[in-house]
Amino acid sequence: MTIKKEITAGIIIIGNEVLSGRTKDLNTSTLANWLNSLGIKVEEVRIIPDNENIIINTINKLRNTFNYVFTTGGIGPTHDDITAESTSKAFKLEYGIHKEAFSILEKYYDPGEFNEGRQKMAKMPTTANLILNPTSGAPGFYVENVFCLPGVPTILKSMIGGLNNVLVGGDPILSKTVNLRTYESEIAKSLTDVQNNNKDVEIGSYPFFRQGKLGVSIVLRSLDQKKIDKCNSQILEFVKEKKIEIVNLD
Amino acid sequence: MTIKKEITAGIIIIGNEVLSGRTKDLNTSTLANWLNSLGIKVEEVRIIPDNENIIINTINKLRNTFNYVFTTGGIGPTHDDITAESTSKAFKLEYGIHKEAFSILEKYYDPGEFNEGRQKMAKMPTTANLILNPTSGAPGFYVENVFCLPGVPTILKSMIGGLNNVLVGGDPILSKTVNLRTYESEIAKSLTDVQNNNKDVEIGSYPFFRQGKLGVSIVLRSLDQKKIDKCNSQILEFVKEKKIEIVNLD
Repeated sequence: MTIKKEITAGIIIIGNEVLSGRTKDLNTSTLANWLNSLGIKVEEVRIIPDNENIIINTINKLRNTFNYVFTTGGIGPTHDDITAESTSKAFKLEYGIHKEAFSILEKYYDPGEFNEGRQKMAKMPTTANLILNPTSGAPGFYVENVFCLPGVPTILKSMIGGLNNVLVGGDPILSKTVNLRTYESEIAKSLTDVQNNNKDVEIGSYPFFRQGKLGVSIVLRSLDQKKIDKCNSQILEFVKEKKIEIVNLD
Repeated sequence: MTIKKEITAGIIIIGNEVLSGRTKDLNTSTLANWLNSLGIKVEEVRIIPDNENIIINTINKLRNTFNYVFTTGGIGPTHDDITAESTSKAFKLEYGIHKEAFSILEKYYDPGEFNEGRQKMAKMPTTANLILNPTSGAPGFYVENVFCLPGVPTILKSMIGGLNNVLVGGDPILSKTVNLRTYESEIAKSLTDVQNNNKDVEIGSYPFFRQGKLGVSIVLRSLDQKKIDKCNSQILEFVKEKKIEIVNLD
């Protein structure tokens, strides 16, 4: 038997605008789906304010807990963008103009347009590695296992692909979803039995409302396809027994 | 001068389905907007897995840090719904059938329909206070300063109003938004000056893309309307000076 390897990640969403309810966080699901595809499992997300001490403490806590940490937000040009300086402090690294970032931004803007506000976006831990930004020039960066990305969802999306060859993933996390026309309470007991018989498969049960009717999605997740298949066939057994309809939601 | 009072809250989103990226968390913004309206400021959100020890530790950490804690998810009928039992353990309280909850659910379902799965939804700390559920019967509950709500956004929304008279809010958090047709980098320096002159006002700067053009929303937040007004007039000064257009986004 081969031992399956699990690689973990934590996400830190930095921004008062998410905590105030003004802005909905879209980056968690983008990052989680992408990390899953690389075999990296998100274990925790924290949404925190634009506060230097909190950012430093959260980065230091999570980078010692998970294989990778991703931060979003706070790397723009304004006074409330303090992620780059806070990350420097978390790692006790010099915060200043990053030569390569400065050079990228200088080329990106027209002559005379590379003003003081924009130059701030070249400030970060001076020894950081850059994460290139194909959308709007200003790069993200990473230090050891902490990756700092912007908060704007479209820009973040355009940047993460550049990290596919930097991150070392684990075995891919496999999943299978079965959608049933039933209520959770109708299958709760049978599902508990299946879970008890299949300790290595994570079985999730999620109600949905589609096509005007209620239903339940059963999601099986494991590193091992054979274990998912075994678990799935046990679910199909009680589904058949209870005469529950299987729904195709695609 | 009267001292302004700040009341804080933490939110715990419980669910593997959010961490896997399968489900987008909509409850944070619902809770944050509602709490803001009651003068309660959300200081931190944690998204954590369906894991008993993690739930217990997170509840105990946050309930000792903030005035209020709200959990969402994990109070349904299936095996992966472990929030109620975990909360009992966090408070070292007996976990079992809550008489009032049982009676509510017994009346809600037709005779013979109140099966074992559904009866699980009456299990919680036996001395908890209930949070009534006008949508689907099964109540949430609270113990001391920890409020446990369901994960389904529409059901959660229908339940929170029932807590308006239970929560003791602080002074309302006031805010003003100014939308400008400019780039963040054009106003970064002026905005820093205004922030330095107005330490008690939280100034946020958020890029937007609307009506086919880029812009920046400046959000001022404070407990004191006069401080917001002063800050706002200083912003309008540099806006006029720089000939920046003010945009109405409504």
